[in-house]
Amino acid sequence: MPLSPVQPHQTKVGWIGTGVMGLPMCRHILAKGYLVTVFNRTKEKALPLVEKGARWADSPMEVAKGSDVVFTMVGFPEDVRQVYFGPSGILKGVRAGMILVDMTTTPPSLAQEIHKAAAELGAYALDAPVSGGDVGAREARLSIMVGGDRDAFEVVRPLLEAMGKSIVYQGGPGAGQHTKLTNQIVIAGTMIGVCEALLYAYKAGLDLATVLESIRGGAAQCWTLDNLAPRILKGNFDPGFFVDHFVKDMGIALEEARRMKLSLPGLSLVHQLYVALQAQGHGQKGTHALILALEHLSAIRRDQ
Amino acid sequence: MPLSPVQPHQTKVGWIGTGVMGLPMCRHILAKGYLVTVFNRTKEKALPLVEKGARWADSPMEVAKGSDVVFTMVGFPEDVRQVYFGPSGILKGVRAGMILVDMTTTPPSLAQEIHKAAAELGAYALDAPVSGGDVGAREARLSIMVGGDRDAFEVVRPLLEAMGKSIVYQGGPGAGQHTKLTNQIVIAGTMIGVCEALLYAYKAGLDLATVLESIRGGAAQCWTLDNLAPRILKGNFDPGFFVDHFVKDMGIALEEARRMKLSLPGLSLVHQLYVALQAQGHGQKGTHALILALEHLSAIRRDQ
Repeated sequence: MPLSPVQPHQTKVGWIGTGVMGLPMCRHILAKGYLVTVFNRTKEKALPLVEKGARWADSPMEVAKGSDVVFTMVGFPEDVRQVYFGPSGILKGVRAGMILVDMTTTPPSLAQEIHKAAAELGAYALDAPVSGGDVGAREARLSIMVGGDRDAFEVVRPLLEAMGKSIVYQGGPGAGQHTKLTNQIVIAGTMIGVCEALLYAYKAGLDLATVLESIRGGAAQCWTLDNLAPRILKGNFDPGFFVDHFVKDMGIALEEARRMKLSLPGLSLVHQLYVALQAQGHGQKGTHALILALEHLSAIRRDQ
Repeated sequence: MPLSPVQPHQTKVGWIGTGVMGLPMCRHILAKGYLVTVFNRTKEKALPLVEKGARWADSPMEVAKGSDVVFTMVGFPEDVRQVYFGPSGILKGVRAGMILVDMTTTPPSLAQEIHKAAAELGAYALDAPVSGGDVGAREARLSIMVGGDRDAFEVVRPLLEAMGKSIVYQGGPGAGQHTKLTNQIVIAGTMIGVCEALLYAYKAGLDLATVLESIRGGAAQCWTLDNLAPRILKGNFDPGFFVDHFVKDMGIALEEARRMKLSLPGLSLVHQLYVALQAQGHGQKGTHALILALEHLSAIRRDQ
């Protein structure tokens, strides 16, 4: 079935998953005038969209039946599997020519599995995970990393552009997920570097704000130092990005790396420290809470 | 002895150490019109400054005898010790009221030792290590992190401003060195994050330039990704900053942290990987050569 361009007021867009990320992302699509149908495990969280004109459906299957393009933005790989392959899953409602876009961060192998299942039904699948956090989602400034059918990517590009500022096609099925994992590996490094550095400066008796003034302008500069170090100094560990989700992402990356016979000692260490952080009860804090696990190691109690 | 302001064409400035960093830094001082005396272990490397009007002296002691302010920018802590405390060292030529500024990255304890020895002679000492590499030195865009006598810092500020764009006083003797080590700890993290991420993307079969396009704009953004990842993609491992020097800096930071009872597992791992990199014969390459040690671990041979 040939692909046709998307058009506001005509194209029917399904959206599954209306959490911290999914809700504002779907709102942008709705604001552009597309005909949106939503589903979420907890219905209440989808109501702000229904109030703005989205139609509610009772299952992922029902969403698929009423849509031309379906987006999913849920939590964990198990959730993605359930939403696509479950008894009332999307694949039960797919028609030929439809485009399925999973924006959750999941294993590349799962993206490939969805792609294969969609293709067998004459449909197209993209993996399109994002970076930029809740702020990026609200401000439509996400980086969206896309893998899958290139033609289908070109068709949904206007929808992705409603949500992000950097939309890059990375290759076949799974390439978007691999790119997102690459992104997370860098962040694992910047996070431990920044957290260990702040603890060092604290123990050395330096004034942390004055230290940041010196080091932010040079080779140590990074997004984490600019955006999360000031929050750490304030003792604010509210999540931009949840520890629990980051542990999941690093676990996927390590598993993929192992499969590719690639040893990643740095990522492995950071992953373990985050597992400790979860064990200490901080799974629902932001990723910069890594400093709490490092403080715990050295029995440090900062004034907060 | 009271401190008096520095003035071009009047203040006598001594400079010891004219390597990749020291040469361009001293050139800026000379260009401002100060009366410069230089010494370097290998005389030839100082000749470009002599040609521009600097006077040559035969030892650090002789430099000190002819100067009001003396800067040192040498390689390793042993060199700093020799230059200050050796038989023809600076301290043999110091007069009351002089200001000594060590810009080498060394242990904070050594900075404190120099400060104490200077004070006993009625002189002032600052530790003022820099970040920004050879490019920052040439373009007078260094970040300079200063510890020691605050009044002496205010006196030499115009000289530091000739070499850097971010000049920040961090506290008493050793505080500049502690700040520099904080900076290096962040870099250890960004470096392993970026190198492991690029290897992951390579093994996953992604196009590395396209991946950089996606991840540079988000939470993974860092100076290392912006400046060194493109060099890695070209197989260019020329030093901006030498592996050998970085191993020294990390070793100092780990020793200081141990003394302060601070466990830094991330820094320790990166340090060990760089020791492996040295063992593999890459000590004179740039710090981004860390990727070569990681490739070696997984027996990867990239096309270069």
